[in-house]
Amino acid sequence: MSNEANTDCIFCKIAAGDIPCHQVYSDDAVLAFLDIGPISAGHVLLIPKCHCDSIVDLPAEAAAAIGLVLPRLSRAVMEVTGAKGLNILQNNGACAGQVVMHAHFHLIPRVPDDGLGYRWNAGKYGEGEAEKIRDQISGALANS
Amino acid sequence: MSNEANTDCIFCKIAAGDIPCHQVYSDDAVLAFLDIGPISAGHVLLIPKCHCDSIVDLPAEAAAAIGLVLPRLSRAVMEVTGAKGLNILQNNGACAGQVVMHAHFHLIPRVPDDGLGYRWNAGKYGEGEAEKIRDQISGALANS
Repeated sequence: MSNEANTDCIFCKIAAGDIPCHQVYSDDAVLAFLDIGPISAGHVLLIPKCHCDSIVDLPAEAAAAIGLVLPRLSRAVMEVTGAKGLNILQNNGACAGQVVMHAHFHLIPRVPDDGLGYRWNAGKYGEGEAEKIRDQISGALANS
Repeated sequence: MSNEANTDCIFCKIAAGDIPCHQVYSDDAVLAFLDIGPISAGHVLLIPKCHCDSIVDLPAEAAAAIGLVLPRLSRAVMEVTGAKGLNILQNNGACAGQVVMHAHFHLIPRVPDDGLGYRWNAGKYGEGEAEKIRDQISGALANS
């Protein structure tokens, strides 16, 4: 992983202005533009301008910049579309549905008969399992 | 909307320590803990400690703090679970699947036979539609 522009990456080319997009927002760290295959009208992609394959590679400065713009961008998308709901979705890895290997956040305004649906089968931890994985994750964070 | 603790809000009670959780991370602005109805083991919720109903109400400081911790938390969850993929999902509004009305981000490690699935029917803009909504969203952002 490198945060240099990746010459094979379509989102790096969009960020560099070498491929056009329908841009809705830009600052030093991030860019937002319309998804060309929208789930509903106003479906926006928010990306860091630096290359990173996924969320795990996102540098701290770009991560904070992404977080900062999410509420503003969400308000604008909902105001313009009149949507009553919005999903923010960020997929990492092919098995999670990531197609372009440059970290990106989908902002999807939800309207009747849009193209998004879920299967959400919640499970349950067995005896002691939650405590074990809690300790592992908090331990990994403490060492990061 | 207010960013004061909401006495009827289960996530405000968790943030205040009045209801227990399996905490994996905490700082001044945010808290992360295991979802009690996990899609897969290690499914984490990341919330701002201040109350806000949804992403559109999230104050700038908390939003940046959420962004900043997402890569670290994602790395820890993937390291511990060994998952090859991770979805970050943030639902706003009942029609988008939001159940607890305190903004929260799901971090869902993706493993075979987990409980998450999608319908993703991408559409297409008609002539001039993308340009129109781009101008509306960028205009709304410029005025925000």
